[in-house]
Amino acid sequence: MSKSVVFNERDAEYLLYEWLKVDELTQRQRFKEHSRETFDGILDVAKQIALEHFEPHFQKLDANEPRINADGKVELIDDVKLALDAFSAADLMSAAMDEKVGGFQLPMTVARAVYMWFQAANASTYAYAGLTTAAAQTLYQHGSQELIDRFVPHMASGRFFGVMALSEPEVGSSLGDLTTRGEPQPDGTYRLFGTKMWISGGDQEISENIVALVLARHAGENAQPGPKGLSLFAVPKFITDDNGDLGERNAITLVGLNHKMGNRGTTNTLLEFGDDKHRPVNAQGEPTSGAVGYLIGREGEGLALMFHMMNEARVFVGAAAASVGQRSHLTAVRYAGERRQGRLPQDKGHGGPMVPIVEHADVRRMLLASKSYAEVSVALVMFCSRLQDEAQTAEREEDREAAALLLDVLTPIAKSFPSQYALKASDLAIQVHGGYGYTRDFTVEQLYRDNRLNPIHEGTHGIQANDLLGRKVAMRGGAGLDLLVRRIAQTCEAAGAGAGAGADTQVWAAKLRDAVERAVQVTRKVHGRDNANAALKDAALYLEAMGHIVAAWLWLDMVNTIDGPEAGAGEGGAASNDGAGSDATFYAGKRAAAQYFFEYELPHAMTLLDVMENASDVLLDVDPKSL
Amino acid sequence: MSKSVVFNERDAEYLLYEWLKVDELTQRQRFKEHSRETFDGILDVAKQIALEHFEPHFQKLDANEPRINADGKVELIDDVKLALDAFSAADLMSAAMDEKVGGFQLPMTVARAVYMWFQAANASTYAYAGLTTAAAQTLYQHGSQELIDRFVPHMASGRFFGVMALSEPEVGSSLGDLTTRGEPQPDGTYRLFGTKMWISGGDQEISENIVALVLARHAGENAQPGPKGLSLFAVPKFITDDNGDLGERNAITLVGLNHKMGNRGTTNTLLEFGDDKHRPVNAQGEPTSGAVGYLIGREGEGLALMFHMMNEARVFVGAAAASVGQRSHLTAVRYAGERRQGRLPQDKGHGGPMVPIVEHADVRRMLLASKSYAEVSVALVMFCSRLQDEAQTAEREEDREAAALLLDVLTPIAKSFPSQYALKASDLAIQVHGGYGYTRDFTVEQLYRDNRLNPIHEGTHGIQANDLLGRKVAMRGGAGLDLLVRRIAQTCEAAGAGAGAGADTQVWAAKLRDAVERAVQVTRKVHGRDNANAALKDAALYLEAMGHIVAAWLWLDMVNTIDGPEAGAGEGGAASNDGAGSDATFYAGKRAAAQYFFEYELPHAMTLLDVMENASDVLLDVDPKSL
Repeated sequence: MSKSVVFNERDAEYLLYEWLKVDELTQRQRFKEHSRETFDGILDVAKQIALEHFEPHFQKLDANEPRINADGKVELIDDVKLALDAFSAADLMSAAMDEKVGGFQLPMTVARAVYMWFQAANASTYAYAGLTTAAAQTLYQHGSQELIDRFVPHMASGRFFGVMALSEPEVGSSLGDLTTRGEPQPDGTYRLFGTKMWISGGDQEISENIVALVLARHAGENAQPGPKGLSLFAVPKFITDDNGDLGERNAITLVGLNHKMGNRGTTNTLLEFGDDKHRPVNAQGEPTSGAVGYLIGREGEGLALMFHMMNEARVFVGAAAASVGQRSHLTAVRYAGERRQGRLPQDKGHGGPMVPIVEHADVRRMLLASKSYAEVSVALVMFCSRLQDEAQTAEREEDREAAALLLDVLTPIAKSFPSQYALKASDLAIQVHGGYGYTRDFTVEQLYRDNRLNPIHEGTHGIQANDLLGRKVAMRGGAGLDLLVRRIAQTCEAAGAGAGAGADTQVWAAKLRDAVERAVQVTRKVHGRDNANAALKDAALYLEAMGHIVAAWLWLDMVNTIDGPEAGAGEGGAASNDGAGSDATFYAGKRAAAQYFFEYELPHAMTLLDVMENASDVLLDVDPKSL
Repeated sequence: MSKSVVFNERDAEYLLYEWLKVDELTQRQRFKEHSRETFDGILDVAKQIALEHFEPHFQKLDANEPRINADGKVELIDDVKLALDAFSAADLMSAAMDEKVGGFQLPMTVARAVYMWFQAANASTYAYAGLTTAAAQTLYQHGSQELIDRFVPHMASGRFFGVMALSEPEVGSSLGDLTTRGEPQPDGTYRLFGTKMWISGGDQEISENIVALVLARHAGENAQPGPKGLSLFAVPKFITDDNGDLGERNAITLVGLNHKMGNRGTTNTLLEFGDDKHRPVNAQGEPTSGAVGYLIGREGEGLALMFHMMNEARVFVGAAAASVGQRSHLTAVRYAGERRQGRLPQDKGHGGPMVPIVEHADVRRMLLASKSYAEVSVALVMFCSRLQDEAQTAEREEDREAAALLLDVLTPIAKSFPSQYALKASDLAIQVHGGYGYTRDFTVEQLYRDNRLNPIHEGTHGIQANDLLGRKVAMRGGAGLDLLVRRIAQTCEAAGAGAGAGADTQVWAAKLRDAVERAVQVTRKVHGRDNANAALKDAALYLEAMGHIVAAWLWLDMVNTIDGPEAGAGEGGAASNDGAGSDATFYAGKRAAAQYFFEYELPHAMTLLDVMENASDVLLDVDPKSL
């Protein structure tokens, strides 16, 4: 079993039970079969499989990336299939799915913690499973019963994997410009023609079949240009019969693999659907060379379904970034406690033994920073999953709607804050390790490379920024922003009264109130600009500032739920981070990280808002040739 | 020849002649043989060799890193030796060295520009040469005539290479704890025993010989514990006779190579000097198994000589970071002008062709940011080299002293600002490329990985921070800081009067004055703390804030030297960045980057200073077990 520090169990326990109170969910109809025992049981299974089957080949997979062999097939080290088999055998693929398709029907919040074990242990190997779960959920929620029966149970069991195929070589962020098309057939199926790029897991020999959810332009009488002409299709690698037995190979060709900076173990494919160049037709003049695809939902719903998938994918990416960032932080903490170097300034020249580097203030600064980034990133994605559960199962409709609305506003932040700041935790982990961190003998440089993907895929930072400032805070007359502001105000109020209340939390609450007020001002001012390009030009700064405000809010909210500064002092209690400390130490760490965040980080949000308010239009006016 | 954009020639021309006025140096005795023609000539040679011999194997070397073959020798792709042969054949190894050892006796400022071509084109291959130049200079400045004759001419010609061997497996930053020792011999030589780690270029089969400058503890009657017991030794791979002919192999064993995140082409070695375990002695009881070494300077001078070397090495590292950052920026600018994606917010849904991504405000933001970081990083290291020339050749002693003092204060900033912010330019270049930037088919992910070394080696960011706050701004009663403040004040004054003066530059000058005043306040306040650890705890923030202040100063100073906003409009003039634009476009780009820096970046310096002033002692007080 792995000796690496991978995931902070004590923190997950805190987040699930003490902060997010997921055990209360077991009173709801959907989760009534569950109890804290079943939650803990599955978390233990996740831990065991992650440490025994996923983490041990984390570095080996990076050093032996997938390649295409002489037969045109993808070759991967065996460890990947063995790990995913263990994962499927434990029925983890369908942990949050409905019982009727073989799922555990776990709350999303608990499933999130389960999956973060794997994202932390080996994000590349886990990606095959994560994509399968996401594709199966989409099919289950939006496909016809026939389509569900055809694919979903086989995906839930891990026999078939699933992938998403959206981007094309010339079209990434601008989906309305996609050119892949599906030609309707008399039998109700479609034939797909086109090239898809960046398809993670798009080919492999691990699973018996691969079901690609392909965004494409429906041809035929309903064809339309632009986004409205897009539909979503399920396109399997092998055609299956009603029993799920594999038939002939579908017309999908693996054209090549991309070779990435990190996340090397997940194949990243260029796929060709159909054979558009030769385009044979049958006696009826129907193309026979396209890839057989099945429409999901209706023609023209492609973009809506894609956004639905995408929103979940964005929280998923945030969770990946958070997990890897947290592992980076834990790895750096362990190293800093073991590695000795130098002496404290006041002891210089007095001889004596070298101190563990965690004694140096600058190393502590880096570790408090990475703790404050990584732990709040984990908290943020867990919080979003809790909102998903609330949106699905809260008893009152207004609570369900409020949860959905808040989740909608928070999604770009849940994707971007971890992608930027949990990534920074990975970067700081390299720096804490010094020269060793720059070598491949240690894990942190790989953790960084793996994590660097997250601000790029599923919508870059810039795309998230436009989504937040251009859409989310403006939608429904600003209802989402209003709700966020109210929730933050409640937390600030509780800071004067909650279990963790004290002089410091009241100071933090005051700072947070100021920041929120400033953010609302700047939001209004920016939306007052009549030119859309001018209004959105500094959206990235806004996203970063709002990310800091939300992170500060969650830090304050977490501290509110723990007892005062002397919390648990003297009590022994459960294990802390590394299996070492007491509850009191654990809570003291939370307080210190929150304090660091309020003192060292939140001020930058104010500066970003100031810059947004005061900056000239140099971004718009600059001559591109002069860059 | 390479088709990559590697180095900004127009910018180098601007910095050398228009801003730093290096042609004026030709009036000084040391440079009287030179003229603008000889400077331009050698820059052309550098460009040609960099593009023909260094850049083409930039990615190939990364994909084929050095390995130890069955004979225990280092294997490297042939391209490395061919490139370095071309470099040596053009006498570039000794470009700034004295004529009497075969050098060109170029001003350091011009040599800096020459070498930046190579750092940008292929930092890994160039490192072998850069280390040789640095080692040769150290030997020349501090070695006995005999030692100079033994090694320096062969290094200047590129026949022998040079390396620095300071760190040990357990000792990196804390040099006083080094254990490698040199035992004095009756013939005046020493025998060295110990293990050295992280030795870049420490072994290879490219050059006939390798001369390692080894920091070690002199044994014998003058032995002392701690830093005062350290001496510097020249230890060749092969013993040479008086004619420079190679004799027997010295007792240096290549124990292993480190495998790094980037900079993979430069071997990074673990070397064992001597054979401490078996330790045979001759009839006189003298150890015969040590590595033969020659003392440089005197016993006990090791740390002083090392710091001398190190100071130059720190500017060298800053230059590496700046070059790679600038290349990253240029690569991103080219990509952003070619890649089409999406439409502007106001044109959404109106169809029409997709726009080059440089039209998107967020892409411009990233490019203005990377320009403002990378170009000022290049400017900063060029400015430091100009100070070196001034310290060496200014006519008045007070000018030489002032230049040396200012250089001393700026050195940690010249190392760290580029290492942090030109690195950020490399990071932004990945982001501008989107998914493509994350693949190894494009250069930017490698540029990032290569550049990530720079905040680590030659003193980490934290070490530079302690040097700046703990030593440099306090030394000689704060004389260095006072001088920096005066120089900045002069630039601010000129902003109201210089060629580039305008309403905007006066606003910038006012902001810069505020920032300097605040920095001085905070410096005093921090130095007033009686506990050294408490005083230095936020040194990293100080380094970053001062880096921003210095960068803003140089931006303002540069804008002061160019004509007003309409500078050169209508004139054709020399080529800009990519060989495309006019002088007017070039200057407009400088102004825009300066404006960006003042509006978007300098405010963060104020925030960092505020944080330093207001932060509690959470860094000192936090329980390390709670991290």
